[in-house]
Amino acid sequence: MRYNRITTGIIDELKSIVGEANVIVDREKMEVYGRDEVSEAMWQHMPEVVVKPENARQISEIMKLANRELVPVTPRGAGTGLAAGAVPVLGGIVLSLERMNRILEVDKENLFMVTEPGVTTGEVQRTARAEGYLYAGDPCSADSSFIGGNVATNAGGNKAVKYGTTSRHIFGVEVVLPNGDIVTLGGKCVKNVTGYDLVHLMVGSEGTLGIVTKIYLKLMPLPKYVADLLVPFDDVEKAINIVPVIMTHGGIIPTCLEFMDNLSIKAAELYLNQQLPYGDAAAYVIVEVDGNSERQVQEDYETIGKLCLENGGLEVFVADNKSTQERIWKARRCYAEALRMISPVYCMEDIVVPVSQIPRALEAINRIAEKYQIKIPCCGHAGDGNIHATLLRENRGEHSWHEVKEKVLEEMYRVVYDLGGNLSGEHGIGAKRKDAMARFMDPVQLNMIRSIKKALDPNLILNPGKVVDVF
Amino acid sequence: MRYNRITTGIIDELKSIVGEANVIVDREKMEVYGRDEVSEAMWQHMPEVVVKPENARQISEIMKLANRELVPVTPRGAGTGLAAGAVPVLGGIVLSLERMNRILEVDKENLFMVTEPGVTTGEVQRTARAEGYLYAGDPCSADSSFIGGNVATNAGGNKAVKYGTTSRHIFGVEVVLPNGDIVTLGGKCVKNVTGYDLVHLMVGSEGTLGIVTKIYLKLMPLPKYVADLLVPFDDVEKAINIVPVIMTHGGIIPTCLEFMDNLSIKAAELYLNQQLPYGDAAAYVIVEVDGNSERQVQEDYETIGKLCLENGGLEVFVADNKSTQERIWKARRCYAEALRMISPVYCMEDIVVPVSQIPRALEAINRIAEKYQIKIPCCGHAGDGNIHATLLRENRGEHSWHEVKEKVLEEMYRVVYDLGGNLSGEHGIGAKRKDAMARFMDPVQLNMIRSIKKALDPNLILNPGKVVDVF
Repeated sequence: MRYNRITTGIIDELKSIVGEANVIVDREKMEVYGRDEVSEAMWQHMPEVVVKPENARQISEIMKLANRELVPVTPRGAGTGLAAGAVPVLGGIVLSLERMNRILEVDKENLFMVTEPGVTTGEVQRTARAEGYLYAGDPCSADSSFIGGNVATNAGGNKAVKYGTTSRHIFGVEVVLPNGDIVTLGGKCVKNVTGYDLVHLMVGSEGTLGIVTKIYLKLMPLPKYVADLLVPFDDVEKAINIVPVIMTHGGIIPTCLEFMDNLSIKAAELYLNQQLPYGDAAAYVIVEVDGNSERQVQEDYETIGKLCLENGGLEVFVADNKSTQERIWKARRCYAEALRMISPVYCMEDIVVPVSQIPRALEAINRIAEKYQIKIPCCGHAGDGNIHATLLRENRGEHSWHEVKEKVLEEMYRVVYDLGGNLSGEHGIGAKRKDAMARFMDPVQLNMIRSIKKALDPNLILNPGKVVDVF
Repeated sequence: MRYNRITTGIIDELKSIVGEANVIVDREKMEVYGRDEVSEAMWQHMPEVVVKPENARQISEIMKLANRELVPVTPRGAGTGLAAGAVPVLGGIVLSLERMNRILEVDKENLFMVTEPGVTTGEVQRTARAEGYLYAGDPCSADSSFIGGNVATNAGGNKAVKYGTTSRHIFGVEVVLPNGDIVTLGGKCVKNVTGYDLVHLMVGSEGTLGIVTKIYLKLMPLPKYVADLLVPFDDVEKAINIVPVIMTHGGIIPTCLEFMDNLSIKAAELYLNQQLPYGDAAAYVIVEVDGNSERQVQEDYETIGKLCLENGGLEVFVADNKSTQERIWKARRCYAEALRMISPVYCMEDIVVPVSQIPRALEAINRIAEKYQIKIPCCGHAGDGNIHATLLRENRGEHSWHEVKEKVLEEMYRVVYDLGGNLSGEHGIGAKRKDAMARFMDPVQLNMIRSIKKALDPNLILNPGKVVDVF
């Protein structure tokens, strides 16, 4: 596919659609729209123009213009993505959803929130909580990420073990399709088999099939009691081995089940500038349980705590109030930022395997790290089989870094696929993992994805260069 | 699309693929493959040939043959569908999955069951339970329906209020695509954003996008305590009004929240040949709660019971053991069969609205029934906003039945759409609601469905005449 360049004529048309103040062509101002949280320069790319529409109608007009002129459109949320999914790798228009930042409704009769895409996940969570509800989506980036980005990537996060990923909470979306058509898929019905499940085709499609302009998300009653456990281990193998044990033991579904290895703990200490309990531990396991029965919550965490102690846990710290809980989660949540203290450039991976294989996956990653003499701190949602393994560049030269990175990723992905796993559990493919996906995914599945993309976006205008190449 | 007729040459090829014993051409033996549980003769259609493959490879060969010869293939589970989705309305091959009836694995480390599509839902449930797990899919037809059919229609059922529909439990499928390609989508990873969510595009696509040959379904720990409440009301309005109240009250998510009106109760009494408690009540509300804490379960049902009594409930019968629970559910589950005692021919609808609108939907249905002087017993999953409203033909003549049915459906659907609802919550579109869907669905959404269908099945070979017409 060959795309055209943005002309002054196109810029004038964009200005007439969204207003002059909402079109950016100044290079300095555009720079931030050329990158996301992927730290490597190779995944940054300058937009030709940035537009900030305020409603679906404007987005529709932009899409029609882009189709007519054959210029790419890259939709963008808060830019907190970890796969270069919102970066305009082929130039063209960056369509920022930052101005569509209103919560439209909290429907207490149906337990739904209706929101625009540019609201931060944190605001969604806080608004729900203020009304006595839980919005269970909870990526570590909640404070800054947009709910629209969560929908686009089907964000996972910390509560997915019990409550599922973003997808589970989304029952409807208003979408502007690549051709400019505006459509509402689903809504406030909690069941619906009237035609194909297009809502969940949109969720996780990384802005390649449509631009989500309104989101119907399900709220739940807020669990009355929550407790967190922090369990340090002196042996990384013991720590990771406890994960599948907890997940199959005693009928308890924890809300969260997180893992942090020693490098991740040390990075958090450095970043937070504070000593963590057992900061020299080989690994932490963090478990959250919740429910409406205080006694049941207590029984559950006692059962899990005992299990940990019997299997090598050094101690069990129980946090059953907001402030101690916050302390634990601060250490876990800061992973991405903390690692920058050790190595400003890194490559964060997001592999996922069946939960029972998580010890084998971690063992393999550590073996690969050893083999290539590279630090790969591991941390993440072990209860989901999802681990963020982050290759640190540190002081490596450009050439050596790319060489070793390619080799490490190739071996890591191979192991993951051999274990029945996949490239990404929650960060998505974007531009960053597109080539790897083409290599590792069954060609039949790859063709299905291509066919669907082509069917809904025949000019390949929307977020090209992401997820899959279409010819 | 014009299809070719089945020739003796095609039959010979089919015999060489699946073996002579697994090809049926005898009219009498084929008859049962020409209908499902829709009772009207207009939704029955004789197959030209029935084949019973035993694996994905054979299905792949059949699909390749069908594409080459341009003959339709209609996949079929147990034939318990309620939308003429498995009926060969355009003739051709009926592909029965009855021989693919093995449970392949119960994976206790990952809490997954892997099964072929021809296993009954009841066997899936019992196998899970025997190992201490819950498979939470629970359509009323569980004893006879196939799990593959549940996946094809995204079956809902009784536990969907708390646990969601079939879709929520499915994390992977092996599928034979319309062109004969075999592919595994998803698997045992509980999170996965590696490419589009094709698993949930397949679930609920009613066998129009692929034939599911293997299913990876998630098991859960079996809740330790379960209690059911049966609450009779002397006023149908009071009964239905309690539904949204329960759903938003006190942070309790019931497992089930069912509604039966007086006609449904009377039909059940007739069918079961036994008196039900308060059999003359205007309506029943049935509520199930479950959990691991006996005390919590008791608190929950006491809260709900009190709420019902304060809002017009005549009495609260509590069933906290298997046998009394079975008694309640027998009356609820037999709805479809019981109605045949009153009217052998009927038209069962499956409308769904946001839960808060369920009283308005029921009121409208009763008003329409009055206006057209037709009995429309209502029963169903009120906690999901999903009601089965069944138009009874009784002694009406053929012409008058069709005339009144068309008018009633038109008015009913109009009300449902005005309330933010949809045509089908769990039974699907099939052939029966295809024309209504084309009339009521946003044309943009309809076109998306058409584009996807065409992209994955360019010859329109797989289950044509269902869900949507493609040109």
